[in-house]
Amino acid sequence: MSSFGRLYRVHTYGESHCKSVGCIVDGVPPGLRLTEEDIQTQLSRRRPGQSDITTARSEFDSVHLQSGTEHGVTLGTPIGLLVHNKDQRPHDYAETDLYPRPSHADYTYLAKYGVKASSGGGRASARETIGRVAAGAIAEKYLKEAFGVEIVAFVASVGKVALPFAEEDDEVLGKEYVDLIKTVKREEVDKEITRCPHKATSTKMEEAIRAAKARDDSLGGSITCVIRNSPLGLGEPCFDKLEAVLGHAMLSIPSTKSFEIGSGLRGTTFPGSVHNDPFTQGEDGKLRTTTNWSGGVQGGISNGEDIYFRIGFKPPATIAQEQDTARYDGSSGTLAAKGRHDPCVVPRAVPIVETMAALVIMDMVLQQNARQAAAALLPPLTHLPPTMVLPGKATVDKVIHGESVGEVQGQKTGEE
Amino acid sequence: MSSFGRLYRVHTYGESHCKSVGCIVDGVPPGLRLTEEDIQTQLSRRRPGQSDITTARSEFDSVHLQSGTEHGVTLGTPIGLLVHNKDQRPHDYAETDLYPRPSHADYTYLAKYGVKASSGGGRASARETIGRVAAGAIAEKYLKEAFGVEIVAFVASVGKVALPFAEEDDEVLGKEYVDLIKTVKREEVDKEITRCPHKATSTKMEEAIRAAKARDDSLGGSITCVIRNSPLGLGEPCFDKLEAVLGHAMLSIPSTKSFEIGSGLRGTTFPGSVHNDPFTQGEDGKLRTTTNWSGGVQGGISNGEDIYFRIGFKPPATIAQEQDTARYDGSSGTLAAKGRHDPCVVPRAVPIVETMAALVIMDMVLQQNARQAAAALLPPLTHLPPTMVLPGKATVDKVIHGESVGEVQGQKTGEE
Amino acid sequence: MSSFGRLYRVHTYGESHCKSVGCIVDGVPPGLRLTEEDIQTQLSRRRPGQSDITTARSEFDSVHLQSGTEHGVTLGTPIGLLVHNKDQRPHDYAETDLYPRPSHADYTYLAKYGVKASSGGGRASARETIGRVAAGAIAEKYLKEAFGVEIVAFVASVGKVALPFAEEDDEVLGKEYVDLIKTVKREEVDKEITRCPHKATSTKMEEAIRAAKARDDSLGGSITCVIRNSPLGLGEPCFDKLEAVLGHAMLSIPSTKSFEIGSGLRGTTFPGSVHNDPFTQGEDGKLRTTTNWSGGVQGGISNGEDIYFRIGFKPPATIAQEQDTARYDGSSGTLAAKGRHDPCVVPRAVPIVETMAALVIMDMVLQQNARQAAAALLPPLTHLPPTMVLPGKATVDKVIHGESVGEVQGQKTGEE
Amino acid sequence: MSSFGRLYRVHTYGESHCKSVGCIVDGVPPGLRLTEEDIQTQLSRRRPGQSDITTARSEFDSVHLQSGTEHGVTLGTPIGLLVHNKDQRPHDYAETDLYPRPSHADYTYLAKYGVKASSGGGRASARETIGRVAAGAIAEKYLKEAFGVEIVAFVASVGKVALPFAEEDDEVLGKEYVDLIKTVKREEVDKEITRCPHKATSTKMEEAIRAAKARDDSLGGSITCVIRNSPLGLGEPCFDKLEAVLGHAMLSIPSTKSFEIGSGLRGTTFPGSVHNDPFTQGEDGKLRTTTNWSGGVQGGISNGEDIYFRIGFKPPATIAQEQDTARYDGSSGTLAAKGRHDPCVVPRAVPIVETMAALVIMDMVLQQNARQAAAALLPPLTHLPPTMVLPGKATVDKVIHGESVGEVQGQKTGEE
Repeated sequence: MSSFGRLYRVHTYGESHCKSVGCIVDGVPPGLRLTEEDIQTQLSRRRPGQSDITTARSEFDSVHLQSGTEHGVTLGTPIGLLVHNKDQRPHDYAETDLYPRPSHADYTYLAKYGVKASSGGGRASARETIGRVAAGAIAEKYLKEAFGVEIVAFVASVGKVALPFAEEDDEVLGKEYVDLIKTVKREEVDKEITRCPHKATSTKMEEAIRAAKARDDSLGGSITCVIRNSPLGLGEPCFDKLEAVLGHAMLSIPSTKSFEIGSGLRGTTFPGSVHNDPFTQGEDGKLRTTTNWSGGVQGGISNGEDIYFRIGFKPPATIAQEQDTARYDGSSGTLAAKGRHDPCVVPRAVPIVETMAALVIMDMVLQQNARQAAAALLPPLTHLPPTMVLPGKATVDKVIHGESVGEVQGQKTGEE
Repeated sequence: MSSFGRLYRVHTYGESHCKSVGCIVDGVPPGLRLTEEDIQTQLSRRRPGQSDITTARSEFDSVHLQSGTEHGVTLGTPIGLLVHNKDQRPHDYAETDLYPRPSHADYTYLAKYGVKASSGGGRASARETIGRVAAGAIAEKYLKEAFGVEIVAFVASVGKVALPFAEEDDEVLGKEYVDLIKTVKREEVDKEITRCPHKATSTKMEEAIRAAKARDDSLGGSITCVIRNSPLGLGEPCFDKLEAVLGHAMLSIPSTKSFEIGSGLRGTTFPGSVHNDPFTQGEDGKLRTTTNWSGGVQGGISNGEDIYFRIGFKPPATIAQEQDTARYDGSSGTLAAKGRHDPCVVPRAVPIVETMAALVIMDMVLQQNARQAAAALLPPLTHLPPTMVLPGKATVDKVIHGESVGEVQGQKTGEE
Repeated sequence: MSSFGRLYRVHTYGESHCKSVGCIVDGVPPGLRLTEEDIQTQLSRRRPGQSDITTARSEFDSVHLQSGTEHGVTLGTPIGLLVHNKDQRPHDYAETDLYPRPSHADYTYLAKYGVKASSGGGRASARETIGRVAAGAIAEKYLKEAFGVEIVAFVASVGKVALPFAEEDDEVLGKEYVDLIKTVKREEVDKEITRCPHKATSTKMEEAIRAAKARDDSLGGSITCVIRNSPLGLGEPCFDKLEAVLGHAMLSIPSTKSFEIGSGLRGTTFPGSVHNDPFTQGEDGKLRTTTNWSGGVQGGISNGEDIYFRIGFKPPATIAQEQDTARYDGSSGTLAAKGRHDPCVVPRAVPIVETMAALVIMDMVLQQNARQAAAALLPPLTHLPPTMVLPGKATVDKVIHGESVGEVQGQKTGEE
Repeated sequence: MSSFGRLYRVHTYGESHCKSVGCIVDGVPPGLRLTEEDIQTQLSRRRPGQSDITTARSEFDSVHLQSGTEHGVTLGTPIGLLVHNKDQRPHDYAETDLYPRPSHADYTYLAKYGVKASSGGGRASARETIGRVAAGAIAEKYLKEAFGVEIVAFVASVGKVALPFAEEDDEVLGKEYVDLIKTVKREEVDKEITRCPHKATSTKMEEAIRAAKARDDSLGGSITCVIRNSPLGLGEPCFDKLEAVLGHAMLSIPSTKSFEIGSGLRGTTFPGSVHNDPFTQGEDGKLRTTTNWSGGVQGGISNGEDIYFRIGFKPPATIAQEQDTARYDGSSGTLAAKGRHDPCVVPRAVPIVETMAALVIMDMVLQQNARQAAAALLPPLTHLPPTMVLPGKATVDKVIHGESVGEVQGQKTGEE
C-alpha cells in the first residue's frame, strides 16, 4: 500500500529513476493558507548533498503544486504534488547487477514482484520519501496554526556514539536528555551538521561518520522526536492506539529497525512504583503528570504531555567495501558497490521522522474531531452513577459537550 | 478503530465488565477445518490465574463459535466468536474512583470519550485481547496447514533480569540467544512458569516477580517472537512494510512500549560491513543469508529467513503500593489500588504476541496471493533488459508466473 | 466484506442456521442514551410472520446488547449485538439439494467459496440483515437527537401495481407522490399491511400479493425512502458522492435491482430547463430550491432539501411453482421449492432500507464533522478574490468558521 | 474521498482550472505490458470537442506516465499519471459569479468546504474523470489479457428517444435490446456520433440533441454497459455485492441519477416464475442460465453470464437559457450561463462508464484471487455431508482446490 491515513490520507508514487516522484494529499482542511514555499522547506532539509558527511549527489528537489489550492488557500480538495527526478544515473548501478545487494531490497523486490526497476530496490529508495515529506509539511502547517503543535526530531545516536540517555543506572532517563526533549528547537538541531543538538556528542558523531566514510563503511543510529502541544485525547483504541500508529508510521521509513515510546525498552526494567507518572494539578487547573515516562500516551490515547519516541536506523546496506556474497544465480562472488552513497542516513532522516509524526497527529485530530463534534450535539446527560462520571455535579454534561476536562476538574466535589 | 487487517479482518468488542467480549473474523479462507478447541488452546494460555505469579483472578474463558462454519469446516463467511464475562466485580474498583490511576487509561479515556466504563479504562483492559487471540488462533491454524508456519514467542526479560542477548560487546547478538530464536518450541516455553525457556534466567525472573509482588510493586519486561517458514515476499511497501505492520500490531497490545525487528536498536550501533547479511546458496538452491540481523525482512518484504522481533512491556500501572497523586478534581491524595492485579503481565502476553503475529502474516499472505495469482495469468514477458531481469534465459517469465525464485536461480547465466 | 462505513462502521456475521446473527457497531458517539428497546423496534418491523401476506415463519428476534453501554449510555466503544437463531429447520431444504435454485445464490456461493452452508445461499439469506437493522437503529436514534433527522420508507410498487408517480406525461413527478415524500410518517406506513401509505394503491397491492401467493408465485416491487432534516454538506466527492454511497448501501440489500435518486430515470427524459431546481430564499434566510428533482443532492453533496430515492426489488427467487432447470450435475429436472417463503419481500424490506439510509447519513455526518471542526480552528481568511468567496465582506471567514451559509447570505453585496 | 478500490486502488486529484489533473493507480499487477498509448485511447474518447453535438471546447488531453513502469512493463509499484490543463478560461465564468447555478455543485461545494474554486463546482467538474479513465484503461488492458474480458458501453436513451427496450408489455426485455447487449462491439458504438449503435434510434437522438442545443437547452439520457467473459465468483458479500459496488462506481460519475442491474426496475414488475433464470448445461459442461434477467449477478456474486446494467444521466445543469433563480445573497435574479457547454453529456460519458466497470471488476478479481489462492493451499476436504457439497464423490475437494465448478459438474453422480 502506498497510502497512509484514514481521514488525512497520503498516496505516493515514484521510483528513483522515473520521471517524477509525488503524492496526492486528501483530507486537507479547507481554508488553510498554503504555498509551495511551505512545503519546500522540509523537502530541502531532506534532500541529499547538504553536507560532506551525506551523499554527494546533488538533487535539488523543487516541489510543484498541481491542485487543491487557489490564491494560496486550500480548497478542501485533493492536493497533487510532484518533484521531477533530475539526477538519473542508471549506469552507476549497471556493473553490479548480477548481485542482490546484501541487506538491500533487490532480492525481496524481485521475489515479490517478479520484475524489478533498474535501480534494484524500486520503491525502497529513500527518494520515495519525498511525497511523504511534502504531505507532512502541509499537516504540520495546519497543526501549528490550529493548536500550536511543535514537532522536533534530532539525532540521538550514531553508531556507538550516543546522547547521555541516563547518567545513573537507577534513573529512568537522565535530566539532560529529558531537558532536550522538553525544549530543543528545530533551529538548534539544524545548527549541527549531524543534527544532534548536543555539541559534544555531535562532534564525536561527525568524527565517527568521517571515519566510516574513510573505510568505505556505513553507520546506523537513532533519532528522537518530540511532539509538543498535541491535543489531549488522540489515538483510536484498540488497534489504532497512538503509539501503534506512530510505530507503524516510523517503521515504514526505509532502514528503520526499532521504535520506542517514552522511556521505551529501558523503562521496562523499572518497577511500576518508579515508572508510573503521578498526576498533579497544573497551573491552568488541568491535570498534568509530574514525570512523563509514558511519553505522553496512556491507554493508547494522548494525555496532553509531550509525546516523544526514538527510532533506530540500521547502517546503510550499500557500501563500497568488498563483501563476499552470492549472485542471483547462487554462485559466490565479491561485491563492492559503485556510486555515491550516504555513509549515514540519520541526519537526513530527521525531517522524514517529523513528517510521519505530523501525518499521524493530523489524522488522529480529524478522527477525534469527528467524535467530539458528534457528542457535542447530543442533549445533556444527567443522573449517571458516580462511577461513570467526574466528581462534581453535572460534570459529565460539560465534558460531553466539549468543555475541557481541566475546567471541570476545578470543581468542588464536597457535596457528594 | 476496533478493526485490524485488510483482507483478513478482525473486529473486536467488549469491556471487562459487560456481558461478553468477542470478535468477528472476516476473510477466513473457506475449507479450513476449525472447531472451538482449535481456538480454546490459545485462549487458555492467555487467561489469568494460570500460576501464582500472575493475577489470582480465575476467569475461565470458554469460546463460543457463532457462525461461519458447518460440520467443522469454514464457509468463507464471517466467523462470530464470543466469551462470556463471568467474574464481574465492579465493587473492587469503587473505593478508588476519585483518582485517575497513574499511568493507567482512566484519565485519557474520560478525556477522549467524556464518559467512562465503571472499570475505568474501558477497552484498555487486557480482557479486550480475548477477541484478538481467538482470531489469531484461526489464522495460525491456516498458516500451519498451508505453509507449515511456526510462531513461537517467549519472555526475554523481566525487570532487570534478561536473557544473554550478547556475550561480547562486538557481536551483534549472541549465539545462545540466536539459537533460541532458531529452535525454541512452544512446549519448551510453557514448561517454565515465566515462559522464558532458558532455565537459569527463568529462575531469576521468577524470583524477581515474587519479590515485586511481595512489596506490592510490578515489573515490566520484554518478549521475543519468531515466525518460521513464512513465505517469501510478504509486506506491502511503502507504508505497509512488514516490520511497520508488525510494529503496529505489537504496539496495539496493552502496555507495550517498544518494538525492534531483527538486531533492533543494538544492531544500529554496528557498521554496515558487520551488520549486512550476505547471500549464499542454500541446500535447496534458493538464496539464503549467512547471518540474519535483518530479522527476515529487507526493504519491508520478507526474505524467507526467520522473522523475529522483540517487544517491551512497561510494568503494570495498577499497584497496591501507595502513590501520591492527584484526584480528578485536582486535589492531592494517596492512592493504593485494591483488587488482584498481575505483578507482571509478560508471561500471559506471550500468546497475545503470537496472535498478533499470526494476524499480520495471514493478512500479508492474502495480499500477496492476490498479486501473484493476477501476475500468473498474464502472457510471458520477453526481450527485457538484463538490468530488469534475473540472469539466465527467460527467467523473468518464470518468476512472473509464480515459480519460486530459487528454482530460477539454479540456471546458468554463462551464455549471456 | 461484511463491513460498512468509514467512521460509523458496522460489521456483521451470521447465516440463517448458525447459533446467532449479530454485529459490532464501531464509532458510535459517546453519551447517547441507548437501550435494547431502541433497537428492538426496527428489528420487530423487519421480522417475518407479521402478516399473512409475508412468510409464515415465526421468528421472534430479540436483540441482546453485549457491550459498549453502561447505565443506558453509550461509552464510545464498540457495541456488540446479537440475536439468537431459533427457527432452525435445515430439513425444510433437504429434498431439493440437488438443484441450485434459479436466480438464487446457491450456485454462485458454491462457485465462490467451494463449500456452502446447508441453507444454500449462506450469507445471502435475508436473516443477514438483522445486524444491519440493529446498527441502523442506533444511527437513527443519534441522528434524530442531534439533528431531528426523519427517515421514512414506504412501498411504492408491487408487481405492476404502483403509486401514481406522475399524472401527466409532461410533469417530472406528480403532486400526490411528491406530497407523500414530503409528509408521510412511519406510523401511516405501518397502518397498511403492504406498507404502502396510499390506501387505494395498497388495496390493489394486497390483492396482487394474495393472487401471486395463490398461484405459488412471487412478486417484486419498489420502495421509496425519504430523509428529512439532513444536514447540508454531506457526501464526500469524488468517489463517495452521497448518491453513490446511498446506492451502494441500498444495492447491498438482498434482491435489489435498481436505485434512483430524486427524479431518477424518469427525470433523465426532461430537458435541463425543466429539470433544474432554481434557488430561492427560504423563510429562515437560507437558500432553498423551488423544486427538488435533484433529490436533495447536487454535485454529490446534500443541499439541505429532502433526500429521496427509490429502490427496486426483484420477485423472490424461491417459489413453490415447478421450474424446469438443471441440477448441479448438469442433468435436467424440475424443481418446486418446499418450505414457507415470502411471496413478496417488499413490505418487510422497508425497515432495512431505512436502516441503510441511517448508516450512510451517520457516517457522512461524522466525516463532515471532522472537516468542519478542523476548518473552524484556523485563523480567519481575508483578501480573497470575489470569485472564490461569497458576496459580502469577510463572508468567507464566517463560513469557514462554521456559521451557516444562510446567515451569510443575508448580507448586502452592494459595495462590491 | 478521492480514492476507489480495495486492492486495485485509484486516487485522483485536480480541478478544471489547476495545473494538471491526474491519478495514482496502486495495485497494478507486475509484468503487464503498458505504454501511454494504451491509456490515451480511452482518454481521447472521453475528451470534449469530438463532435459538434458535444461541447466546442477543444481540450487535447495527453497523458504523461510518471512512474511504475520500465521498458514498457509494469513493476507492481504505483503508477503516477497526469494530464496538463491547457484550456483554462476562468473569465468565461466571471459574470455569473453572484449566482449558484441551479442543480449545479456551486452551492453545495461552498456549503461543504467554505471556500470554492473559481470554476464553482471544483471537483464536480467532468474534468475530474480524466484520472479515472486513465486508471480504468490499465485495468481493462489487464482484464483483457488475463481473461478476455470485454467491456462495451453504449447510449441507450437521450431525452425521450430510447432504444426499443421491449416490444411487448409481457416481455421482460425485448430481443433486439438483448441482442445488442450480447454482441455489440466498441467500434460499432463509435461509428455513431451519438454512441447509440442502433442507427434508427441514433438518428433521432442526434436530432433531439441539435434541437435542444438550438434552444439553449440540455438533454439527459442513459447508458447501457455490458461486461463479457467476466470470471465467475466476483463480488464480496454482504456489503460489497457486485451490483452494490458497480452501483457505487457508476453513481460516482457526475450527473448520474439511476443504476439498474439486469432487468432493472422493469424486471421488478414481473412475477418470479417469469423473472427467474433457469439453469441448463452449457456446451462446455458448465452450468449456464437460459435467460439472464439477473444481469450476470446472483446473491451479489457473478455467475459467469454477461453482466449488464443501465445508468441514467440528468440533463446538464448549465444552460444558456435564462433561469429565474436566487443569488447567493438570497435576492432574486435571472441567470443565463455563458461559455460553451455540452447540450448532452451522454455520448462522452460512454468511456467513463466503461472505465468504472473495469475498476470494479479488476478489484473484485484481485479479492477473489486472494481467497482462491489461499483455499487452494489447504489439504483436501473429505467426509462432508451432501447438503454441503456438490453431488458426486469428493467433488468439494476439487472445487476447493481451485478447479472450475464446470469441470466438476461434468462428473457422474450415478449413486444418486
